[in-house]
Amino acid sequence: MSRHVPLASILALALAMHTGPPAFGGGADASAEAERALKDKVARATRMLAREGLLGSSGHVSARVPGTARVLIGPADVSRDLVSGEDVVAVDLDSRPLDKVHRPPLETEIHTGVYRARPDVMAVVHSHPVHSVVFSITGKPILPVTVHGAIFADGVPVFEHVGHVNSRELGDALARALGSHRAALIKMHGAVIVGPSVEEAFVAALQLEENAEKQLWAEATGRAEPMTPEEAARCIRQSFSPFSVAKRWQYYVDKEKAERRP
Amino acid sequence: MSRHVPLASILALALAMHTGPPAFGGGADASAEAERALKDKVARATRMLAREGLLGSSGHVSARVPGTARVLIGPADVSRDLVSGEDVVAVDLDSRPLDKVHRPPLETEIHTGVYRARPDVMAVVHSHPVHSVVFSITGKPILPVTVHGAIFADGVPVFEHVGHVNSRELGDALARALGSHRAALIKMHGAVIVGPSVEEAFVAALQLEENAEKQLWAEATGRAEPMTPEEAARCIRQSFSPFSVAKRWQYYVDKEKAERRP
Amino acid sequence: MSRHVPLASILALALAMHTGPPAFGGGADASAEAERALKDKVARATRMLAREGLLGSSGHVSARVPGTARVLIGPADVSRDLVSGEDVVAVDLDSRPLDKVHRPPLETEIHTGVYRARPDVMAVVHSHPVHSVVFSITGKPILPVTVHGAIFADGVPVFEHVGHVNSRELGDALARALGSHRAALIKMHGAVIVGPSVEEAFVAALQLEENAEKQLWAEATGRAEPMTPEEAARCIRQSFSPFSVAKRWQYYVDKEKAERRP
Amino acid sequence: MSRHVPLASILALALAMHTGPPAFGGGADASAEAERALKDKVARATRMLAREGLLGSSGHVSARVPGTARVLIGPADVSRDLVSGEDVVAVDLDSRPLDKVHRPPLETEIHTGVYRARPDVMAVVHSHPVHSVVFSITGKPILPVTVHGAIFADGVPVFEHVGHVNSRELGDALARALGSHRAALIKMHGAVIVGPSVEEAFVAALQLEENAEKQLWAEATGRAEPMTPEEAARCIRQSFSPFSVAKRWQYYVDKEKAERRP
Repeated sequence: MSRHVPLASILALALAMHTGPPAFGGGADASAEAERALKDKVARATRMLAREGLLGSSGHVSARVPGTARVLIGPADVSRDLVSGEDVVAVDLDSRPLDKVHRPPLETEIHTGVYRARPDVMAVVHSHPVHSVVFSITGKPILPVTVHGAIFADGVPVFEHVGHVNSRELGDALARALGSHRAALIKMHGAVIVGPSVEEAFVAALQLEENAEKQLWAEATGRAEPMTPEEAARCIRQSFSPFSVAKRWQYYVDKEKAERRP
Repeated sequence: MSRHVPLASILALALAMHTGPPAFGGGADASAEAERALKDKVARATRMLAREGLLGSSGHVSARVPGTARVLIGPADVSRDLVSGEDVVAVDLDSRPLDKVHRPPLETEIHTGVYRARPDVMAVVHSHPVHSVVFSITGKPILPVTVHGAIFADGVPVFEHVGHVNSRELGDALARALGSHRAALIKMHGAVIVGPSVEEAFVAALQLEENAEKQLWAEATGRAEPMTPEEAARCIRQSFSPFSVAKRWQYYVDKEKAERRP
Repeated sequence: MSRHVPLASILALALAMHTGPPAFGGGADASAEAERALKDKVARATRMLAREGLLGSSGHVSARVPGTARVLIGPADVSRDLVSGEDVVAVDLDSRPLDKVHRPPLETEIHTGVYRARPDVMAVVHSHPVHSVVFSITGKPILPVTVHGAIFADGVPVFEHVGHVNSRELGDALARALGSHRAALIKMHGAVIVGPSVEEAFVAALQLEENAEKQLWAEATGRAEPMTPEEAARCIRQSFSPFSVAKRWQYYVDKEKAERRP
Repeated sequence: MSRHVPLASILALALAMHTGPPAFGGGADASAEAERALKDKVARATRMLAREGLLGSSGHVSARVPGTARVLIGPADVSRDLVSGEDVVAVDLDSRPLDKVHRPPLETEIHTGVYRARPDVMAVVHSHPVHSVVFSITGKPILPVTVHGAIFADGVPVFEHVGHVNSRELGDALARALGSHRAALIKMHGAVIVGPSVEEAFVAALQLEENAEKQLWAEATGRAEPMTPEEAARCIRQSFSPFSVAKRWQYYVDKEKAERRP
């Protein structure tokens, strides 16, 4: 019985994270297969974030199908703890549903707004993290105070609109607030974390909240002095490599499997 | 196998939340059936709030049978995590038990006091939420600092009586303190959350505590500035619609089922 | 299938809490049977407090056998989550073991010191509650700021000795610090909660920590003003009656059963 | 059925903690057997720390094989919740892998740096404890404010390098920062806890975080005055004896077994 994941698998996973489906040669079948796999990954990330308390009865994960204008997104109307790849819906960059199985979220524009503005972004997480959101209430900045928070050293802007991001105009405005950053807070509401892969956006979503919890404790008891830009650059290089991201993703995959084991 | 809940079901649920049993035509059988279903819903809300930590060895949920002076309420003497529809008891608006299976709670007047004063209220939750109660100790107001807290933007009054609400006089006084609000705190004790349906009172009870936890962290580390009335109105419209409430209710129903599976 | 506990049972339980074994007539068999039942209760309270996070790898519950100089106490060397009635050991009031199955705790004097000084005390809990212990670090007093905390309105003295209570001298000194109170803190270490029954000491142990957690949040964000003595007296009367204590005890008994149900 | 662990077993365990494998006489077989047992212990400590929230997708436990220059360490690429003795890898004191089954952690130098400098250290834990790390952000010292924290009364130095400890130079520098202490913090990153046995390092790792959580609450609400050196010495003698350490280790072993029981 093999419960462990050998190095080769994690390296393969790390490589796969940055690779889209074959651009040609496979034809329609290969492409459909790749999209099914990506839907499974979106669903898995959603379930795992729910399990970690970052999503609850709402919040969503999406991914752009490489080389297309298709976005795969968790549906509005399926419980986040139970969602499967078959439930994931496809929308275009104007948030129009491309199939009829499930309804896309009311806030699909959080995702499509970012995809329109940021060609580098291939995955988006919209979470409701308890500690991170506090910073959008006090107006104090999230600072890089931990190795895992270093990836947010260039700042986590706050999108000042209080309410749903449910129109093209708001999606565009959120994307402008996000700019070239890795994450933004939506005031009094939640967070948006983006990345070049589902795995990376998933891991970054966890790291945002881990850093925020420690920063709140630091501010409640003393002064939270951020790391220097040089330190942040080193931390990112060291602990946010494709290997590290793949390892963390695999950790939560294993954890889900272990807890499901009767 | 269908683990997901299609849109149609949630919409049907949203509609049903605001619909009582058939006013006539069904006769005694249909009415008994509707009451059984409402008892099941009261029991389910109780179990789900216990699971979320808002009820423990005490606290209760009730519902008014539409068009009657009957109130269905979780019993005093059944563990909140295990209560079933059969355990739910019926009382009249004077808190007198209408059957003998179980004993009504000592604080039934929390519920009947509100039902007498507020014809619009069809369901009441009495919870013991850790973070919300803190505001009734410090005397600081609960403020709308999150999208989910917007429904409390008109204020959460504190009923200043420290102790049980176990007489008609106290039930009336609590109802006066509550006024037209959606929730009140009972000083150093707990919360009362009301709504036009069990689902809406259940969801509001969760939202009160979610908002309170974030507000406490904000106050421990900075300043908690509330949203504007305009922002609050928008948040309520957007995230407390019948669809949203039904979706959140369904989320916890699914979660309970998933945890009971094996 | 009966998952609920009818009122009659809880009332019987409430009565039994304040009743020892038959003083005569039953002979040796009846008395052995009563002691076995009391050992089961000590073990159950220990497991339930471990489940609620108030005991961990150490901490203990004890009971005095009514009308005797025998004390039944959870052993030093059995995991608190797993202890059964058969593991519970008997000691005399000088902390000498009366049987050889298991070793009594190193700190048995916490219990026997109190039993020697307080004939009214029939049960003692020694817990390690996270939030309550903080007050023995800061030196700030635990105040009655919640209905459940009212039972501590006459104060929770701090025994200033930092270390184990492992001698007759220290047991006596702890008892003097406790005086006629219901609970004391052992500085930087833990809590001692006493009562006329295992059930009451168990419930009081939970209430001490519930009150402490809310008080800490109140102090971190504002001012924690205690309730008045009149309010405290009312709260004790209302929410610490034999019925209330029996109901809360039963709640945790049911919870343990439910979680063990495969 | 025997769910409890009699005193004799715990005493035997306490003795075994301070005893290496037979120095001679057993030959290669006995030595291989002892190493397998030590690998199992490293894996078990890793799983139990993950279960307690001190390790997650990263962090590791190691042990030195007594009388050798071999270090057994949890691998980089196996989920901490699932690691078994077979997954544990052997490295030399220069962090070079001695077998090829799994990859050693990128930060193996945290461990080997300490083993090179501290012949007394037989086990090292590298954890990521939420509350302890906060002190490496604010720069406030961790103080002995609880009986369990007394073992850190001589101070918990902060290694000021922000980033991975992934070179011999950094391993040496960390060991210098640690000096003769029992634990050090790695700034904005995590903790290193050392001991003469896996059991003792494991228990100390838990105690560091327990003390830190209470100290944070004390500082958020008042003043955290440390115990005196005399008090600390007494607490260490009393609650960190081989018996106490063995008892606490056994507690978590039992807990893991109980939770795995279907």
